[in-house]
Amino acid sequence: MGLSDYYVGCDLGGTKILSVIYDADFEPIGRARKKTKGHEGQEFGLKRIGDTIEEAMDDAGIATSKPGSIGIGCPGPLDLNRGIIREAPNLGWVDAPVKSSLEARFSCPVTVANDVDLGVYGEYRFGAGQGYRCVVGLFPGTGIGGGCVYQGEIFRGNVTSCMEVGHIQIMADGPHDGAGNAGTLEALASRLRVAAEAAQAVYRGQAPALRRKAGMDISEIRSGALAHAVENGDEAVIRIIENAAEYLGVGIVTLVHLLAPDVVIMGGGMVEALPELIVKTARKSAKQRVLPSYRDQFEVVAAKLGDDAAVMGAAAWGRHSLEVAASDGGS
Amino acid sequence: MGLSDYYVGCDLGGTKILSVIYDADFEPIGRARKKTKGHEGQEFGLKRIGDTIEEAMDDAGIATSKPGSIGIGCPGPLDLNRGIIREAPNLGWVDAPVKSSLEARFSCPVTVANDVDLGVYGEYRFGAGQGYRCVVGLFPGTGIGGGCVYQGEIFRGNVTSCMEVGHIQIMADGPHDGAGNAGTLEALASRLRVAAEAAQAVYRGQAPALRRKAGMDISEIRSGALAHAVENGDEAVIRIIENAAEYLGVGIVTLVHLLAPDVVIMGGGMVEALPELIVKTARKSAKQRVLPSYRDQFEVVAAKLGDDAAVMGAAAWGRHSLEVAASDGGS
Repeated sequence: MGLSDYYVGCDLGGTKILSVIYDADFEPIGRARKKTKGHEGQEFGLKRIGDTIEEAMDDAGIATSKPGSIGIGCPGPLDLNRGIIREAPNLGWVDAPVKSSLEARFSCPVTVANDVDLGVYGEYRFGAGQGYRCVVGLFPGTGIGGGCVYQGEIFRGNVTSCMEVGHIQIMADGPHDGAGNAGTLEALASRLRVAAEAAQAVYRGQAPALRRKAGMDISEIRSGALAHAVENGDEAVIRIIENAAEYLGVGIVTLVHLLAPDVVIMGGGMVEALPELIVKTARKSAKQRVLPSYRDQFEVVAAKLGDDAAVMGAAAWGRHSLEVAASDGGS
Repeated sequence: MGLSDYYVGCDLGGTKILSVIYDADFEPIGRARKKTKGHEGQEFGLKRIGDTIEEAMDDAGIATSKPGSIGIGCPGPLDLNRGIIREAPNLGWVDAPVKSSLEARFSCPVTVANDVDLGVYGEYRFGAGQGYRCVVGLFPGTGIGGGCVYQGEIFRGNVTSCMEVGHIQIMADGPHDGAGNAGTLEALASRLRVAAEAAQAVYRGQAPALRRKAGMDISEIRSGALAHAVENGDEAVIRIIENAAEYLGVGIVTLVHLLAPDVVIMGGGMVEALPELIVKTARKSAKQRVLPSYRDQFEVVAAKLGDDAAVMGAAAWGRHSLEVAASDGGS
């Protein structure tokens, strides 16, 4: 079958929508970004996704032609088969028909996938995971996102995505995560957890650099502020981050023992701000604990694509899904 | 391509070798069993595997014809691509060339796989996992074995098998497992752990039925003895088993959050002896803890095939591998 010569990637986030147009070699040729404004409702939101894509097409100078495919990364539990966001608490949307809405507007195949999965797929296709048979991603942020690309395909559930690495339990008791579970990886090693620990260090007078930069409001203690504190010698903050990275290493052990990935890619804002400290500490923690027969079988590395991983992954996954469908139909 | 009309399954265990011959409909038509005698060395052992297969072929009355394929399940870290047992501490073998040895003797394609994986594959093809997209197996024994069949294929590492569910860490500290790691599922919920806890209950005078049946020697406290104690009202033993099953439920939560299986199949001697108590308790523990969006997406059930799962799985996997190779070659 003939493919159009450009592909749309879109990343629907809680605060912004990003769309990038790629040519057949996956070089970006146009881009647009809008605030999501999820509170305005899902009808408004679905139109806004389309508007962002249209603006990116305009930017690429191809506003009148039809895309080869659209791939879009979305948060929350999805119905992957029907291309629906079942629930996005951040946006207040329920059963939002992303796929059918975009297909009606752009008259091209649309593939909806989990945003974190698409970030891992982007790294697999264009970043730190190229050429590997099994790639696992680990992204500590407000929660901890994860994904797995296995033999070139996103590993997924029957209806929804999976790889909820933040919800691996690694401690029988311990602090609670956002879902109310105790001792999960997310409760022990998310950026939110690190920020909360760091705020206590500020309160106790143990983190002067962080105090000057961010104070004790944990919404201010973001990745850049943490990196600033580390660079300026806040020992307490360094210990807190190392501690979280050690727990991330414990999570990696479970991932390696179950999935035997060739590479574990760590990403997200906090890792990007402190790649050396976090990746090295997590790697050491994992290599120490893993069974000997797995020790030399996996790498732990930092992501390469930054914020663009999900949108590149979305475009590439959309095209890949199209090709798989075409070859299934033709056989 | 033409397939012969019978298929050999073989299960290499620490104490016995079992081989069963199946016809094209996977009905068993012959069977043989021998002691492994691993201590006699791997050359002796490889010959003995072949002898067991030959005896099963004799039993089926087809000694002179060539099998369509041989599938064999082996313990220990394997090189799946080359069909080698890299290390089997129970047998004392290192780099045992199972595949090439059997191919030379029987002149047919041989597929080597992990024995637990083949048990899960057997349940997927013929037992409790039929028709499911993603099947996870959980087999508490001396350790805790696991496996995953995803979209009809055994989930595996690049070289070795994976799904070492016994080595999921679920407690930051706690008892140590056989590999020296603290707080793993195996350390908390294996049959060996249950036996050790039960022996203490006997010592303390809290398990009179178990005392009469098995005493305090943990090598005597096997699945049958535990079931006897439960049936005869040893409350302490019931609590110990329930406690282990609750930990198995915690392990299932991690498996569900990562892999979103449609079904988790529990098997092995202890589960077979006490299916109601263990499966029900583990299911309840898992359903309580899992994220709401996964709660109705998976079943927890008992295995159906018992001891024959691995050998049936081996025969079917051997044939499946042959067919995949043929269709890859033909496309």
